[in-house]
Amino acid sequence: MEHSPTSERKWIDEYHNGVRYGLEGKVLIDEKSIYQRITVIESSRYGKGLLLDGCWMTAERQEKQYHECLVHPALCSAEKIQKVLVIGGGDGGTARECLKHKEIKQLDMIEIDARVVQLSQQYLPSLGGKSWQDPRLNLKITDGITWAANSPNNFYDVVIVDGSDPAGPAKGLFNKTFLKNCKRILCPGGVFAMQSESPEAFRKIHIEIVQQIRQIFRYADPLYGSVPMYPSGWWSWTFASQNKPSYRNPISYRVAAVESKCEVWSERWQKGAFDAIPAYIERELLK
Amino acid sequence: MEHSPTSERKWIDEYHNGVRYGLEGKVLIDEKSIYQRITVIESSRYGKGLLLDGCWMTAERQEKQYHECLVHPALCSAEKIQKVLVIGGGDGGTARECLKHKEIKQLDMIEIDARVVQLSQQYLPSLGGKSWQDPRLNLKITDGITWAANSPNNFYDVVIVDGSDPAGPAKGLFNKTFLKNCKRILCPGGVFAMQSESPEAFRKIHIEIVQQIRQIFRYADPLYGSVPMYPSGWWSWTFASQNKPSYRNPISYRVAAVESKCEVWSERWQKGAFDAIPAYIERELLK
Repeated sequence: MEHSPTSERKWIDEYHNGVRYGLEGKVLIDEKSIYQRITVIESSRYGKGLLLDGCWMTAERQEKQYHECLVHPALCSAEKIQKVLVIGGGDGGTARECLKHKEIKQLDMIEIDARVVQLSQQYLPSLGGKSWQDPRLNLKITDGITWAANSPNNFYDVVIVDGSDPAGPAKGLFNKTFLKNCKRILCPGGVFAMQSESPEAFRKIHIEIVQQIRQIFRYADPLYGSVPMYPSGWWSWTFASQNKPSYRNPISYRVAAVESKCEVWSERWQKGAFDAIPAYIERELLK
Repeated sequence: MEHSPTSERKWIDEYHNGVRYGLEGKVLIDEKSIYQRITVIESSRYGKGLLLDGCWMTAERQEKQYHECLVHPALCSAEKIQKVLVIGGGDGGTARECLKHKEIKQLDMIEIDARVVQLSQQYLPSLGGKSWQDPRLNLKITDGITWAANSPNNFYDVVIVDGSDPAGPAKGLFNKTFLKNCKRILCPGGVFAMQSESPEAFRKIHIEIVQQIRQIFRYADPLYGSVPMYPSGWWSWTFASQNKPSYRNPISYRVAAVESKCEVWSERWQKGAFDAIPAYIERELLK
């Protein structure tokens, strides 16, 4: 991908392993922050969109299937949801979905790259929506790995990891030390959630992430859905807990409070998405 | 898409509504049959691939998620499966999945375009595999709509429609008269199956197809899966039956006979895929 801001419409593509996925549009911003290359485009199909290091992250009209599916299985099922930690998620979509839950008192959002937040607020304001002004949101621009390492035991009710692919600044989010800290800072009855890549385009990485989370937490399961702009479009999120697989059992009153506000996620969708594991992944995970 | 056979590697893309999906490869064949433009490519990611009128149809290493998911929910659940009709499916993948079921005695495959069959046999032989030589396969090169109109009442145990998008030669496969004939020629206890487009890239068409099949059959439900090379990658197949939604209840001995031979489909996957209906589609279908 080489492009500079221009008024001309053209194709902006993510290239991955002999496949490309492109949107027609204009490049609005193309800059390097301390951590990564950030590109903001205006597409005809999905409105404004964000790429980090040339990979599609999100777009105004293609983001709910990602954010809803990462957030609600965790927030509908954790025992309490007063204190929630989001690592990453600088575009604001995960915070917006979390804050639909009125029980949340404190949402710590730890994003490493201030420019992602600034550009998302400026160009994709619908993603964060009112959450940027919500007094429950405590946004810190710092390293999420260090934040997890320094947080007290049993502090959070829910921990959500909304990072990019395991390269660049998100690399450390996929290692054992970090995941162990996530478990340590989560209270008993808490739920952990993490985007866990594509079972098709990142088959090996996906299996490794799920296995690693399972080794650290007692219970962990991936669920499968669709994010068209990500490699292969076939995506997964993995949920984990300690005493029982509580993420499998959403609590009715919480479901009732958010279900009508969601576009893709529903209790039924979630139940299906946990079962819709491709046979080849199920076999690998049983090994 | 404009390309002629060449030894040069390049990007071959399908364009749809401001989005493109491309594979890197070489064009091997690019010709016009009586019905449509047929392109065969050799891709680095998925092996040989087939496009009809510039739209991705299938590829050697990206076809099981489509064919398994269209075939097994129907063939595992119909009361009998001795006589099966496949309309379309000229690449052979649907026939191959069907013929995994030993109970089939007669598989009528009605493909309108002989060149699709010839080129698939020559360039993508793994799709049809041994089914091209299977004595149970009765391949007819003729119009599937006329075939359905001329078939006797209650003749088939399963009818599978494996057509391309509702344009070009497949257009008539999405209309009422054809679907009514499919119902008429299906025996009681039979199951109907049809690819029913993307709930994302073809949202309106998808809803119309499901509603139309529901009006004609008493029971009909879509299931959702992933075919990365199709627009949005988020795909659906709709199953229908008359006395009860039998497609929801696969028969154990048939599942046991084919499950280990499948890459994506399993009884569990199927159960999940019926539930994993996006909330916005569920709401539309309830209207």
